Amino acid sequence: MSLKLYIDWLSQPSRFVAIVLNILKVPHEVVEIRIAEGKQRTPEYAKINPYRKVPAIVDKDGFQLAESHAIVKYIIKSRNIKTPLYPDDPQQSAKIDEYLDYHHTGTRKLSQYFFNLMVAPKLGIETTVNLEQAKKEAIFALKLLDTKFSTQDYICGKEITLADLSAYCEIMQLHMVNWDFSKYPNILNWMSRVTQIKEVNAGHEVLLKIVQKIRSKPKL
Amino acid sequence: MSLKLYIDWLSQPSRFVAIVLNILKVPHEVVEIRIAEGKQRTPEYAKINPYRKVPAIVDKDGFQLAESHAIVKYIIKSRNIKTPLYPDDPQQSAKIDEYLDYHHTGTRKLSQYFFNLMVAPKLGIETTVNLEQAKKEAIFALKLLDTKFSTQDYICGKEITLADLSAYCEIMQLHMVNWDFSKYPNILNWMSRVTQIKEVNAGHEVLLKIVQKIRSKPKL
Repeated sequence: MSLKLYIDWLSQPSRFVAIVLNILKVPHEVVEIRIAEGKQRTPEYAKINPYRKVPAIVDKDGFQLAESHAIVKYIIKSRNIKTPLYPDDPQQSAKIDEYLDYHHTGTRKLSQYFFNLMVAPKLGIETTVNLEQAKKEAIFALKLLDTKFSTQDYICGKEITLADLSAYCEIMQLHMVNWDFSKYPNILNWMSRVTQIKEVNAGHEVLLKIVQKIRSKPKL
Repeated sequence: MSLKLYIDWLSQPSRFVAIVLNILKVPHEVVEIRIAEGKQRTPEYAKINPYRKVPAIVDKDGFQLAESHAIVKYIIKSRNIKTPLYPDDPQQSAKIDEYLDYHHTGTRKLSQYFFNLMVAPKLGIETTVNLEQAKKEAIFALKLLDTKFSTQDYICGKEITLADLSAYCEIMQLHMVNWDFSKYPNILNWMSRVTQIKEVNAGHEVLLKIVQKIRSKPKL
């Protein structure tokens, strides 16, 4: 039995895990769980991930795990992989953990905002958040990163780490709604640095195809 | 220079870090940063934690770190501490990480709900969340844990771990608003198990004093 990775290419945390596994050359089999088709809510999938969210993994020995950051750290630890994406040094790894913890209630606000502003109305889902507040929080997260990138190339310093890959997958999602990044020139420069990694690009193929489709419709 | 821990005893993540350091007997000096007095927004504190949140630490060598889960894992790793609260085993630690990651957008919804319902109006702060949605999410988080505790004593199985301590500090906060836990008997049982740890109790002294004060006021 091989490592199975359950993802939806349109989910930011899903792409993050797939990209890291590919960069680290960890053999795995991708199983697509399409959120738009409600496939994460089937009884079959509940046996794999009771939280009914993507991503999730089932390891070779049947071990099941959810939460993108936990999955990636588990893969690195269980395979004893040495990688600059998550160095062994306690202080370097702690600064990466610090960002990854902040990410949940910080950078992730971006998708909350854009989902409720753009996607929910199209799917007929009632907006459940205060949109003004969500926008404020999304902009705060972008400003924080833009300021960081004015003095350093990556979130934790000179090297790209798990922190950048997780943040990139989230921020990239905003391309779907033609987000105006002109106010955040340092984020744009950072994005162009991260985009140079071929596994990052490959992980965004499905998303970019959809973006292209949306942009080709003159009325959208 | 000793390890400095910047906290507010009324902040859940602050208590979590203080409790874990005490259980692990890690020498440290507590510096109180009172949120109610806006002390986390002073220029002096910004030098310690640019995110202007508690908790934060400054280690003996001057290393600075924020985010409660990241801080605790850093302490364990940097001091090479062996503890059942966060075992070395990749699968056991991964399941703890899984909960700790879920915590940010799951169990933490409880404080978002109670702060906006009860605290914000008293402080004259405008409620910025959809209260109905926040309540729904808070109850979902409680139900999820209550179901878990119907078949196992602690979040990750038979032993208490970092996951329980973080969750406990969050859920305990609801005592401040006389939350009705009668619908969640398994959570009540789990709370009484966790409360038996003397460091957990000591970490809640300030909070419990305030709860007592609130309860003694007949009109509240």
